[in-house]
Amino acid sequence: MEAYVFEIIGTALLILLGNGIVANALLKDTKGGDTGWVGITIGWAVAVFVGVFVSADVSGAHLNPAVTLGFATAGKFSWALVPGYIIAQFIGAMLGTTLVWLTYKKHYDATEDQGAILASFANTPAIKNPFWNFMTEFIATFAFVLAIFYIAGGSMSDEPISLGSLDALPVALLVLGIGISLGGPTGYAINPARDLGPRIMHALLPIKGKGSSAWWYAWIPVFGPIAGGVVAALVYLWIEMY
Amino acid sequence: MEAYVFEIIGTALLILLGNGIVANALLKDTKGGDTGWVGITIGWAVAVFVGVFVSADVSGAHLNPAVTLGFATAGKFSWALVPGYIIAQFIGAMLGTTLVWLTYKKHYDATEDQGAILASFANTPAIKNPFWNFMTEFIATFAFVLAIFYIAGGSMSDEPISLGSLDALPVALLVLGIGISLGGPTGYAINPARDLGPRIMHALLPIKGKGSSAWWYAWIPVFGPIAGGVVAALVYLWIEMY
Amino acid sequence: MEAYVFEIIGTALLILLGNGIVANALLKDTKGGDTGWVGITIGWAVAVFVGVFVSADVSGAHLNPAVTLGFATAGKFSWALVPGYIIAQFIGAMLGTTLVWLTYKKHYDATEDQGAILASFANTPAIKNPFWNFMTEFIATFAFVLAIFYIAGGSMSDEPISLGSLDALPVALLVLGIGISLGGPTGYAINPARDLGPRIMHALLPIKGKGSSAWWYAWIPVFGPIAGGVVAALVYLWIEMY
Amino acid sequence: MEAYVFEIIGTALLILLGNGIVANALLKDTKGGDTGWVGITIGWAVAVFVGVFVSADVSGAHLNPAVTLGFATAGKFSWALVPGYIIAQFIGAMLGTTLVWLTYKKHYDATEDQGAILASFANTPAIKNPFWNFMTEFIATFAFVLAIFYIAGGSMSDEPISLGSLDALPVALLVLGIGISLGGPTGYAINPARDLGPRIMHALLPIKGKGSSAWWYAWIPVFGPIAGGVVAALVYLWIEMY
Repeated sequence: MEAYVFEIIGTALLILLGNGIVANALLKDTKGGDTGWVGITIGWAVAVFVGVFVSADVSGAHLNPAVTLGFATAGKFSWALVPGYIIAQFIGAMLGTTLVWLTYKKHYDATEDQGAILASFANTPAIKNPFWNFMTEFIATFAFVLAIFYIAGGSMSDEPISLGSLDALPVALLVLGIGISLGGPTGYAINPARDLGPRIMHALLPIKGKGSSAWWYAWIPVFGPIAGGVVAALVYLWIEMY
Repeated sequence: MEAYVFEIIGTALLILLGNGIVANALLKDTKGGDTGWVGITIGWAVAVFVGVFVSADVSGAHLNPAVTLGFATAGKFSWALVPGYIIAQFIGAMLGTTLVWLTYKKHYDATEDQGAILASFANTPAIKNPFWNFMTEFIATFAFVLAIFYIAGGSMSDEPISLGSLDALPVALLVLGIGISLGGPTGYAINPARDLGPRIMHALLPIKGKGSSAWWYAWIPVFGPIAGGVVAALVYLWIEMY
Repeated sequence: MEAYVFEIIGTALLILLGNGIVANALLKDTKGGDTGWVGITIGWAVAVFVGVFVSADVSGAHLNPAVTLGFATAGKFSWALVPGYIIAQFIGAMLGTTLVWLTYKKHYDATEDQGAILASFANTPAIKNPFWNFMTEFIATFAFVLAIFYIAGGSMSDEPISLGSLDALPVALLVLGIGISLGGPTGYAINPARDLGPRIMHALLPIKGKGSSAWWYAWIPVFGPIAGGVVAALVYLWIEMY
Repeated sequence: MEAYVFEIIGTALLILLGNGIVANALLKDTKGGDTGWVGITIGWAVAVFVGVFVSADVSGAHLNPAVTLGFATAGKFSWALVPGYIIAQFIGAMLGTTLVWLTYKKHYDATEDQGAILASFANTPAIKNPFWNFMTEFIATFAFVLAIFYIAGGSMSDEPISLGSLDALPVALLVLGIGISLGGPTGYAINPARDLGPRIMHALLPIKGKGSSAWWYAWIPVFGPIAGGVVAALVYLWIEMY
């Protein structure tokens, strides 16, 4: 039970600080309006650092269904805990994005650009193309989860693996790398809870003139990352067989 | 007594380097005039790193009344030391901001923008709205102090907690995250001494054409952070009960 | 055998994230089009971090023929393994850059600037001058490999040296320094596999309107780094004689 | 003797990467021409990291006469070694800046802006005023050396102190903080060898159309940092008396 609580807290901090940097960069009249791609990816990386650091020693800091499913696929995490972890991650993501909305309430009120409002919740692609958008999320999450296996457990380990607080910095740098380098086409969801949870809140919250939640795109940042995480687990098992 | 001295030194270094980056970014004719939000938040993060690193092993590196009050509320820091710590933090903040003024003296003389001068001492909000400005400082400080509990003491600890020099990097990254992501509406005081101490010095120092010290706003970066820190302590205690 | 596999994986991650940041910065319509030199060098540094972290504990994380040849020259790495390591590094580099192409496929399709397309694979100099371009790559790689000796093995060690996962951060910061500071004239290949492997793929892949692979320049990022790495090894041996 | 060699190597790497970022940012037609203040200060910080990391375990990584004189003043470093250390630091600085010139040779040839050329060797102030320029260098170096005492030796230590390779990151972050925040008025020499050594080379090297070496300013980045370092040592001793 405690692990679930810390998955909620960790994911809430992740999304509070992660979507917070997007809100700061894109909403009207904030102090961070000159923040560009590098700043946004640094903000998300630090968000990962904080979320992982706080939750790691209790829950193992998955904060991401693609990680949870990848670990379970590789036999490194109990399938019995998977549903609870994923539910906790979604609760945390919805809570975190709601706190972003409260933090930037007057700026949401002042912003007329519906794309900017949505971007501070969930992703849309730079160039719409379901196949290649899926490919991008698949490759980015594959690289992310494959690296996570080695950060969390090292090579050759037979035991269950999880992240500890000392892994927070490597994971944050990994997410910085994935984001700054591979985020260009789709904004690097690489995490179904990170995208779908806030997208649901975008639909639910009473945001003035918020426009569409872009549901046409919602499946890609869910299934692309899941596919990437599961394939990373299979590749990890294949490498470890040597 | 020695702890108080190191709270002064640590807070002075924090404010010297923290308000220094704002002076560099905003005052006239400096070499850092192209520094934007990301640079300012990196500067403040490094300021936290230096202040915490130098003071942590002696005073525990609170450097912030919201942290001191949060720790005391949670029963992790002696109430008897609270007044001395807060006084030391204010002395350090006033000393540090005075050193910024001496470092940038000719640039203060050359700057006509009163808002830029004030910004290198204390905060004003991007959009004036006492309720929502308070909410922003409350949420940002709540997230900050909640995370500090886990950085300082880990989960489940029964003992008093304090920051050590090895915590300087996690705390700096945490403040980078809070600032870059949640600082957009109010400039993330998240620390009563950081805002009120320098605001007092703004009023006292003989700065040419300095204009208003914006006293109408001064209460929010004091009471918003205190409320956030105390509520974070209560939530921490509630989580730890499980 | 396992070491070769991890050299492939490590180099593939290095080039996926490294060339990925260039693709994001330069290709058309990406979300990272405002990324400049600092962002690009941060991206490459994080790419090094991830590649080294994942591979170090198995292969020693050379990921670069100039490092492999430097270590072998200094008697710190078996010459018998050199050919396999270099082949693995080239395979990894070609694999990684292919993943960049798949990640950014629609953006490659949309980009008309042939120089931008090539830059996301391999380098060309800012000012063409074979002698001085060689000198730049020589000095940058000399400084890089000399520092690597001290990161990997410390001073005075008589044993074989290799990088471990704890060296990933120092090496990443070293590459950040080499790149941000010395990359101005030639884009800091400092690694024959990093430049020639992707340049071969640029020639092979069916990229629409890709233009020249700039073969006239290809020898410099191969032989400049090799010369720099070998001379660094000799200087290291000379220093250690004291 | 070996310590002197490593002071030379460490200072050469410091200045190669440090002045390298300035050359990249300011000289004509480089790839890093969009680099601003934040990038320059990150470049210098990483330069410090590399220089300290490589030399620390042998020489203690002073790389700066203000540090050497500060440590000696505090009784933490033998006066007998001071002249050799300072000479080594100057040799290293002159060597490093010469390597920058060779690395960027064609860009020096192409650059007509004499201020840009000089800036890649040595500092001049943003606003000329000997008293306040001295004050700025004094305060910046005072804060730098005071913090160095606690990074190098911790509080209350009676033994000689020196930096180890694990101190490279804290020192680099400290220099990032000093530079980004306090470098606005004078470019933060905070090190006599860093400024005077390269200024001598600016005068000696056959740089086309190089213009003045600004000798009128040369005394300030020598005596300001020395004064700051010595006063920091005295304040350190005074604090330690408690």
